[in-house]
Amino acid sequence: MTENQNPIGFGIMGCAEIARKVSRAIHLAPNATLVAVASRSIHKAKQFAIKNKLSDNVKLYGSYDEMLDDPLVDAVYMPLPTSLHVKWAVIAARKGKHLLLEKPTALDVKMFDEMLKACESNQLQFMDASMWYHHPRTAKMKELILNLELFGHVKVIHSSSSYHGTTQFLENDIRVKPDLDALGALGDAGWYCIGAILWTMNQKLPTTVAALPSTIRNSAGVILSCNASLYWDEEETVATFYCSFISHETMDLSVCGSNGSLHVEDFIIPYEENCATFSFTSGAKFVDMHIGWNVKPQEVQVATQLPQEGMMIQEFSRLVKGIKDLGLQPDTKWAETSRVTQLVLDAVKNSIDNGYKAIQMYTTKLDV
Amino acid sequence: MTENQNPIGFGIMGCAEIARKVSRAIHLAPNATLVAVASRSIHKAKQFAIKNKLSDNVKLYGSYDEMLDDPLVDAVYMPLPTSLHVKWAVIAARKGKHLLLEKPTALDVKMFDEMLKACESNQLQFMDASMWYHHPRTAKMKELILNLELFGHVKVIHSSSSYHGTTQFLENDIRVKPDLDALGALGDAGWYCIGAILWTMNQKLPTTVAALPSTIRNSAGVILSCNASLYWDEEETVATFYCSFISHETMDLSVCGSNGSLHVEDFIIPYEENCATFSFTSGAKFVDMHIGWNVKPQEVQVATQLPQEGMMIQEFSRLVKGIKDLGLQPDTKWAETSRVTQLVLDAVKNSIDNGYKAIQMYTTKLDV
Repeated sequence: MTENQNPIGFGIMGCAEIARKVSRAIHLAPNATLVAVASRSIHKAKQFAIKNKLSDNVKLYGSYDEMLDDPLVDAVYMPLPTSLHVKWAVIAARKGKHLLLEKPTALDVKMFDEMLKACESNQLQFMDASMWYHHPRTAKMKELILNLELFGHVKVIHSSSSYHGTTQFLENDIRVKPDLDALGALGDAGWYCIGAILWTMNQKLPTTVAALPSTIRNSAGVILSCNASLYWDEEETVATFYCSFISHETMDLSVCGSNGSLHVEDFIIPYEENCATFSFTSGAKFVDMHIGWNVKPQEVQVATQLPQEGMMIQEFSRLVKGIKDLGLQPDTKWAETSRVTQLVLDAVKNSIDNGYKAIQMYTTKLDV
Repeated sequence: MTENQNPIGFGIMGCAEIARKVSRAIHLAPNATLVAVASRSIHKAKQFAIKNKLSDNVKLYGSYDEMLDDPLVDAVYMPLPTSLHVKWAVIAARKGKHLLLEKPTALDVKMFDEMLKACESNQLQFMDASMWYHHPRTAKMKELILNLELFGHVKVIHSSSSYHGTTQFLENDIRVKPDLDALGALGDAGWYCIGAILWTMNQKLPTTVAALPSTIRNSAGVILSCNASLYWDEEETVATFYCSFISHETMDLSVCGSNGSLHVEDFIIPYEENCATFSFTSGAKFVDMHIGWNVKPQEVQVATQLPQEGMMIQEFSRLVKGIKDLGLQPDTKWAETSRVTQLVLDAVKNSIDNGYKAIQMYTTKLDV
């Protein structure tokens, strides 16, 4: 397989728990290979290598800088705490490394733009590590939502992303620490809801964003749970979402159009790796006397050989390979996807911090 | 069967389309019998009798007053336009008829209380004709939501009730006419969402209600589509809903607790009459490396012999029979259920009419 020749060399920068999943994905993707792992201590890097049964060929570094100087590292996967993203993304970009960045991308769009500028001025591919975009189920859902006859115009969207953190998580995880991941549940779980809503709307920014007066924070002020609404005035489309660290696990996306509707309850991480489903209904009406429906939702099944994180690595590597081997430009699609998500996230945060006032948004062109 | 002896005699007051379903339900319920149908014209009553193959024993009236004087009519089912409810409910109550009233119950709680006072002072049973409360699936869902171990505390609720009206509907139906059903989609479809949310919260009124800035009205000012949020400060629970006449058919209820979650997509009218389902998940966690879930949602199936509208008639008739034959008091549960729904509906309307401001609510005891 041509793809297997000269695979893209990845360096993992930070041994967070999620890095285990991405390390496996790099192993599974046919056009990628893991060449290095760096932690702030060589001991942690070694532990990671043992736990994940990494090949002896993978180099282990006890500092990020050292790994960034390794010429075999084409791209870095960066699962660092959000507050460290700008610093290290900019350094990595200056050293010519393509960037697969864990979400939330930044604490605000200003920091995001700094990273993006560093990537763009060095001709580097940027992508955030939201995996669900890459599952073929996502493409299938999009195909149906875009089918004007079957689905009509998108009228309303609702998404929920939550899990119940353990006591250990709620006391010690980086995602509840104001100096590490100050965006809390909004940044971690809300990122997916906002992303899914914008994905449904073809990345168009809403006219208005307003948080609902229901935010729950921990004693350090970090958001544990919140709700928000988004509105597009031209389309008259409305979306709501809920994200939380203190509720049962949900990964819901419901989209209702004028002619059809779609529901999925595991959109972020499918229940199973090989096959994912969603339910789709079109043209539903009541039967005579309203004692039932003319159609029941159809369960659409979508198989995948590579798990979605493997698909993500494959897609990112394909783009990096195009730049590296064929002199192509970076694909800006992924940066734009991340940037609108960040903009809406900032607006929700702004609304929460300002008494839940409605934030007017404007279509902001990518201009960095 | 004892129930079959001396069944409760029903009079249907108004030949709306929905009366066909209720007429059938009266026929199916073992403790009820249809004794009369009234319309403003005897011709319409006759047409209704023919279309629904009513027995020759069913008396047909060309005026509501005449039917209300029939001593064989114990109870009336009233599917009149909402603006006519108060007038006719009060007349019916004065003539000693128990009242099964189509929803929305009234244009506001003041009118609702007038009807309720008339029923109570005449020792009459009141119930609104929301059928879904009576399906055994609803009881099963409640059982699981109340299970503290499996479900935990209710954190967030989302509901959607919509259908896409035909051009004919959107131009001529009583539900889009300001003089007939001025509450539009909020009254018709939103009634169910509000009811389902309050049902989840054991009929406790929210602290705050706010419509989202997304209401769509027709040229006469009647609501075609709107969204709102509800918040309970003591429980820190939040709910959102969407109701619409211009979207594909949805009947969604999602409830997420701290330990479990529940989804149903046909809660108002089940897809099929004999068996209804919902999905339930408890204790869901990611498996190692977050590549899947430890449990998939369970599809809970609940069979019913009588369709839910038959169950409704049976329950209403049971209560009427208790009053009539055993001298029991009317059961106030159903009036309270309707009244909190009406109060929240009024608050949503108030919010919409006042620039989407948040409406503070207070626990209002039933006091009429």
